[in-house]
Amino acid sequence: MIEQPWSREEFEMHLREQGRAYHIHHPFNVMLNSGRASPEQIRGWVANRFYYQRSIPLKDAAILSNCPDRAVRRKWVERILDHDGYGENAGGIEAWLRLAQAVGLDREPVEELRDVLPAVRFAVDAYVNFARQAPWQEAVCSSLTELFAPEIHKERLRGWPEYYPWVEAEGLAYFRSRVSLAQRDVQHGLGITLDHFKSAAQQRRALEVLKFKLDVLWVMNDAMAQHYGVTR
Amino acid sequence: MIEQPWSREEFEMHLREQGRAYHIHHPFNVMLNSGRASPEQIRGWVANRFYYQRSIPLKDAAILSNCPDRAVRRKWVERILDHDGYGENAGGIEAWLRLAQAVGLDREPVEELRDVLPAVRFAVDAYVNFARQAPWQEAVCSSLTELFAPEIHKERLRGWPEYYPWVEAEGLAYFRSRVSLAQRDVQHGLGITLDHFKSAAQQRRALEVLKFKLDVLWVMNDAMAQHYGVTR
Repeated sequence: MIEQPWSREEFEMHLREQGRAYHIHHPFNVMLNSGRASPEQIRGWVANRFYYQRSIPLKDAAILSNCPDRAVRRKWVERILDHDGYGENAGGIEAWLRLAQAVGLDREPVEELRDVLPAVRFAVDAYVNFARQAPWQEAVCSSLTELFAPEIHKERLRGWPEYYPWVEAEGLAYFRSRVSLAQRDVQHGLGITLDHFKSAAQQRRALEVLKFKLDVLWVMNDAMAQHYGVTR
Repeated sequence: MIEQPWSREEFEMHLREQGRAYHIHHPFNVMLNSGRASPEQIRGWVANRFYYQRSIPLKDAAILSNCPDRAVRRKWVERILDHDGYGENAGGIEAWLRLAQAVGLDREPVEELRDVLPAVRFAVDAYVNFARQAPWQEAVCSSLTELFAPEIHKERLRGWPEYYPWVEAEGLAYFRSRVSLAQRDVQHGLGITLDHFKSAAQQRRALEVLKFKLDVLWVMNDAMAQHYGVTR
């Protein structure tokens, strides 16, 4: 008996359902976005999350390097330009360094990754290595946590100015830029995923891949919760 | 006794000396650029060399993916944009497909790599895999065959219109674009190489790496000579 694949709509629904495991629900993130974090906890998050930010172009370049489809590459390369910047655009990594300064950190120790916890490093490296080694369509699929990203950025934009008035407002520009960019990016990644994973077995594999990436983000938060504590 | 490294100028001179092994001297290339090639030999070259052309962005993305230096990435990504195209710019791979049409080939079999010889494939894949696995500075160094590329493109631009009047002239646009782009790119790659390979042992390694890349291009020509013959 051959298992029937989901329809395109059902498949997308199942992908979106994985959002229940998004780190928006992690106690450390809930603390950050509900105003209970201390300056040290916020600084710890910004410094550690920088390791994720600075690794995104490496992950996206790995996808490019494995992808023989020129039309896909022409769109995917925009992610690298967004994060690294181009011409006058300073880019997302620079915007994150400005956030670091806005929360009271110096640029240099952040850029030098001095406070990055080993477990955060392992989780992020697992993601980059996955993108290097997996078929490029799976690596694309793993990026679909972007489905859930606009909401977490909006939470930050809504809450932080009230909860953390000591954070300089222009530091939040990164979150603002990502609301629209993540929406644009996810259309591309979702289209590729819905087109590529056709059989029931492939669709299940896609859910596994997305779960792996959700785990990366979750484990980063576990590590930060353990080190910086969670204020309830 | 510690071996003294070469000065920057000596090191550059030794790199440039490797040009004696550039495939500009390969009998198959000498035949092509001195007007003795048949339409079949030219078509064979264009179809096989396409595999190299279409692999260049994969190689460059591998370098990006291994390079944690954002300033380097911001410049290196231009190579991907040049080859894949962006916005209205159709890019170098498309230009090569137009060359294919100008020499009388159909696009589709070229894009589908139908006539690519196994030995050509292995040589090009060796180059892409090197870029994926080697330290990014070595992969950058391997790109320095660009030191020698403007001359080979200029030979084509000078000779082909006279020798091969049946080739539509606009098909040669790729060679024209690469004369200036290769000069720009090589400045970047050469600077990184001269900065990075400091000790005598490192400098020797850089020469080895460049020789490996020269071998890639040479072996491609060996394979084509064997299959399509060399007219003397």
